Amino acid sequence: MSDFATKPFVKLVEVGPRDGLQNEKVTVPTETKRRLVEMLGEAGLNAIEVTAFVSPDRVPQMADNAALMTSIQRRPGVAYPVLVPNLRGLEAALAAGVTEIAVFGSASESFSHKNINCSISESLARFEPVMRAAEQAHVKVRGYVSCVLGCPYEGIVAPDKVATVARNLYELGCYEISLGDTIGIGTPRGTHQLFDAVAKYVPRDRLAGHFHDTYGQALVNIYAALCEGIRTFDSSVAGLGGCPYAPGASGNVATEDVIYLLHGVGMETGIDLGKVIDAGLFISTAIGRKPASKLGLARLAKANCA
Amino acid sequence: MSDFATKPFVKLVEVGPRDGLQNEKVTVPTETKRRLVEMLGEAGLNAIEVTAFVSPDRVPQMADNAALMTSIQRRPGVAYPVLVPNLRGLEAALAAGVTEIAVFGSASESFSHKNINCSISESLARFEPVMRAAEQAHVKVRGYVSCVLGCPYEGIVAPDKVATVARNLYELGCYEISLGDTIGIGTPRGTHQLFDAVAKYVPRDRLAGHFHDTYGQALVNIYAALCEGIRTFDSSVAGLGGCPYAPGASGNVATEDVIYLLHGVGMETGIDLGKVIDAGLFISTAIGRKPASKLGLARLAKANCA
Repeated sequence: MSDFATKPFVKLVEVGPRDGLQNEKVTVPTETKRRLVEMLGEAGLNAIEVTAFVSPDRVPQMADNAALMTSIQRRPGVAYPVLVPNLRGLEAALAAGVTEIAVFGSASESFSHKNINCSISESLARFEPVMRAAEQAHVKVRGYVSCVLGCPYEGIVAPDKVATVARNLYELGCYEISLGDTIGIGTPRGTHQLFDAVAKYVPRDRLAGHFHDTYGQALVNIYAALCEGIRTFDSSVAGLGGCPYAPGASGNVATEDVIYLLHGVGMETGIDLGKVIDAGLFISTAIGRKPASKLGLARLAKANCA
Repeated sequence: MSDFATKPFVKLVEVGPRDGLQNEKVTVPTETKRRLVEMLGEAGLNAIEVTAFVSPDRVPQMADNAALMTSIQRRPGVAYPVLVPNLRGLEAALAAGVTEIAVFGSASESFSHKNINCSISESLARFEPVMRAAEQAHVKVRGYVSCVLGCPYEGIVAPDKVATVARNLYELGCYEISLGDTIGIGTPRGTHQLFDAVAKYVPRDRLAGHFHDTYGQALVNIYAALCEGIRTFDSSVAGLGGCPYAPGASGNVATEDVIYLLHGVGMETGIDLGKVIDAGLFISTAIGRKPASKLGLARLAKANCA
């Protein structure tokens, strides 16, 4: 086990408002999204992915990106990244006052073709001008790699393949690379192998874990990654976001449950768990479903009991 | 991390038919329970806790204990333990042909009083004649300890307190001691401390982990216990059994999700995961709810997709 005590701080990147809501069917009003982002900031999350500057035809839920971004009362010390697929997206994001973006690549050729309509190398080539323009605008760039432990079309994905894509994104200038188990298929063995392979090219403090709970393995993979020295994780309040490949199944790991684990093993996050549960119940009520977080469900159960 | 490769076999003790159904509100017909137990045996589970020989007034769901026990087509090599609170229960169990029993103690005085109506030392004294009679009848005895990581009345429970109770049960003749996080409050740090403390008095190959998923931590605690060299875990098909102290919240960890984790990290169980998912969907349909296992939900989601 990695020595938790010497590196006790863990950064959570809250992806609920973007990655989460993007995969929810109910269209959420801008005002509700704004309140959600602000509640998350008040709870102590210091990185909140707000929206995506993508085509409103492809992702209608993100059509209010500029309106949302400009309505948020930003807190000092909190990053509000947005997803950007290309130069046009970056220009729109800059016009809305964005100071950090994220780009989205894949470790699987098939997934890359189906999801972003080009090969892996084409996607990397497409990021180059985006990275240059972002640098000129003093905008930080985070890189996502999807399908790091498996692909819905190709099955198992080799750690070396992930390492190559992560290395490319890092060399292009991404300050952090988030490795995503998009279909939630991984277990700790794969997680250990993955981070060992990628850490040959990208320092561990520049890597993040992004786990989905489709098969219930998200927290145990996060724990395995913690033991590998990883200290940044993506999570989604109330477990927002289903898996588009398995409707009804779980998607993003719930922020509340990750915080419970982290605090339980003695890590520090600077986050108020109770306030995150509040935010999770707020957005769950707004979209008319129960929270997918165990902490949220336990809070509801206790309230019903009393 | 413990060397998984040198001790790759994990025994699962299926507690769904007893611990699970006991906490479900719907009364399940004996024939349905019989079919469930047989499906679990066909799937390769080699320890299935069938029922409890307790007062039907206290636990109506277990009123058919003798009828169920005698109706089961037993498979060679499979253990079919039943819960027994006292000598009267043991006599009834023996009359029904039982060859293995389990007794139930607690590491928390308050929980012991509320749950079994006596102090911890009184409960241990009560087990003595049961253990002697079981020995004479060549019946194996398994011991449960509840509240090993926390108590709904007392909060945190000290590992040394658990160790004392576990040691007593072991010295009384229990061949295996199952340590239960009854309210699901633990995380890996507490799990490591717990097994370290108890293993001073009871060999690790005589210990089992029994985790509840109330706060989503069951699998990560199982993984932590695996790393501690523990190779026996209790689980409940379809996650049967809510937590009586938090209605609506999760109870027992789902057998399906545990198997996915174990096989994923290279452990052997001798269990056919697909058949356990079948059994979980069978009983979930019978009691009119969705399975609480992620694997079961993913199977349903895929079926809806196709």
